[in-house]
Amino acid sequence: MQSLLAGVLRGEPRAVARALTVVENNGAEKRALLQDLYAHAGDAQMVGFTGAPGAGKSSLVDRLISLLRTQGLRVGVIAVDPSSPFSGGALLGDRVRMTRHSADPGVYIRSVGSRGSLGGLGASTREMAVVLAASGCDVVLLETVGVGQAELDVMSVADTVALVLTPGSGDAIQAAKAGIMEIADVFVVNKCDLPGADALVRELQWMLHDRRSLRENWQPPIVRTVAAQADGLERLWDAVVRHREHLAQSGFARVRQQVRHKEAVLHLLEAAFRRYLEERSRQDPEWEKILSGSGADVLDPYAAFDELRGQLPWLSGTDRTVL
Amino acid sequence: MQSLLAGVLRGEPRAVARALTVVENNGAEKRALLQDLYAHAGDAQMVGFTGAPGAGKSSLVDRLISLLRTQGLRVGVIAVDPSSPFSGGALLGDRVRMTRHSADPGVYIRSVGSRGSLGGLGASTREMAVVLAASGCDVVLLETVGVGQAELDVMSVADTVALVLTPGSGDAIQAAKAGIMEIADVFVVNKCDLPGADALVRELQWMLHDRRSLRENWQPPIVRTVAAQADGLERLWDAVVRHREHLAQSGFARVRQQVRHKEAVLHLLEAAFRRYLEERSRQDPEWEKILSGSGADVLDPYAAFDELRGQLPWLSGTDRTVL
Repeated sequence: MQSLLAGVLRGEPRAVARALTVVENNGAEKRALLQDLYAHAGDAQMVGFTGAPGAGKSSLVDRLISLLRTQGLRVGVIAVDPSSPFSGGALLGDRVRMTRHSADPGVYIRSVGSRGSLGGLGASTREMAVVLAASGCDVVLLETVGVGQAELDVMSVADTVALVLTPGSGDAIQAAKAGIMEIADVFVVNKCDLPGADALVRELQWMLHDRRSLRENWQPPIVRTVAAQADGLERLWDAVVRHREHLAQSGFARVRQQVRHKEAVLHLLEAAFRRYLEERSRQDPEWEKILSGSGADVLDPYAAFDELRGQLPWLSGTDRTVL
Repeated sequence: MQSLLAGVLRGEPRAVARALTVVENNGAEKRALLQDLYAHAGDAQMVGFTGAPGAGKSSLVDRLISLLRTQGLRVGVIAVDPSSPFSGGALLGDRVRMTRHSADPGVYIRSVGSRGSLGGLGASTREMAVVLAASGCDVVLLETVGVGQAELDVMSVADTVALVLTPGSGDAIQAAKAGIMEIADVFVVNKCDLPGADALVRELQWMLHDRRSLRENWQPPIVRTVAAQADGLERLWDAVVRHREHLAQSGFARVRQQVRHKEAVLHLLEAAFRRYLEERSRQDPEWEKILSGSGADVLDPYAAFDELRGQLPWLSGTDRTVL
């Protein structure tokens, strides 16, 4: 464990890989490992990229890595693959493309699935980002396809969220309908050499103008890129850096940090409660009988809940009318 | 409340609609309402349909409604729309098509979004199915697009899960890779007038043959349909009914019921715990300070968790090494 920890702090790829696996699999050493890493996580910049499949997120991330490397920055990437069996295999090609950075010791790329992560993908992404930050990454890029709540939870880990849209896709209207515009700090119009780019930019300007009040006093910029030609990456990174400076100066960086910390602690408390319930079921046959309803005529979860709550004195005080 | 309850039990569409809204929105009357409905939920048959977008699930459900109506059965439908902003609007057309049953008082159709349901879509679908069952539905059809974990959770509510696949789509391999084959009790090869249907059936037979042991001693049948021409619906329903009989005779119906009941009770306990944590944060400034890390130098969620756990005596006994 000490050597794993030391390896991560020295940024050794093998140690980082092992530590990420421990976190991803919720391994027994996870807690001891993370507890020591938090103090070294520093203030790596977390930048999230989300958008529809095919919007070019992976190409953008790929090009951005190259740009950041020319600035001497160390870069970590967490790319979340959708959990669905039906969401196609196109992503794989993108991942393979990104591996051209794999020989670069200043870049660490990890793909994760969104299925089966105990208690939410947001929580495990947060912890993986801590590993990468502690290993010396200056920037951690998070990439998800916006196909579900789990993938969007990942974005709550980021300091800056970039929403990637493409001309003629209708994405902007879909995103607006779903309230996803609200989580974006930077809008990227990628493939802006395609017809309809100007229309999309105007549409976004109109939508953003319509926002009643700015979130965190920030006017989200709209950046045009053509990732395939490495065009617009400097403008994109400039927008991200300006957003970070705004968060720091306005004090919202601290607010976001606290919200994230609170979520992480609540997540641990909830996991502890789940474990408590499992232990209790194993040890207490009467408890398990009520839980499974094996003795009941009518399977009424509320009646069973009331009975079990009666055995949890600390819970009994909570408002009965709501539950 | 009494009149709402009476209306639901008489199967009045307006009362059913209001009750479903109460459940979906987690309204204050939810608990009282459901508690009285459980005793009347009886044994409606819950049948889930899942598969890739475009596999023809909505057409199948639409045709199945017609078939079940000729048998004099009352039918409820819960159709889950994916939460993603980017998963297209094609579903809407399907829903509109289904509304041709809307004049039939023996059919109740409800679309729900998969976003924002407190504590999981599985839980709220389970409760909505109880409302429909208590309102007199003999069969409740659940329909989801298999795009994420939330949508798949819905299937845990069903007695029988039908996985809908189409020739030439590569769905079978995708589904097998993701382990989704395991949850299917019936395989439907829809659009089987398309080229590749025989190959898909053979592929499925081969995959199913390869299963080491049968789940619940059930050999899942493969049913060919052409929903657009109402072809194969009798065979499909026959397979569903045979599966139900198998579950009843083998005792697995009771096992599944207990697992579902247990999940529902655990869900209520977890929601109560979440509420407890919220109340505690509001009432106890010291607790809130630790939770948000506002006084800490290093934001270490594990350290905060330990401090808070120390204030929850019942939790302190749980295994510290794992968390």
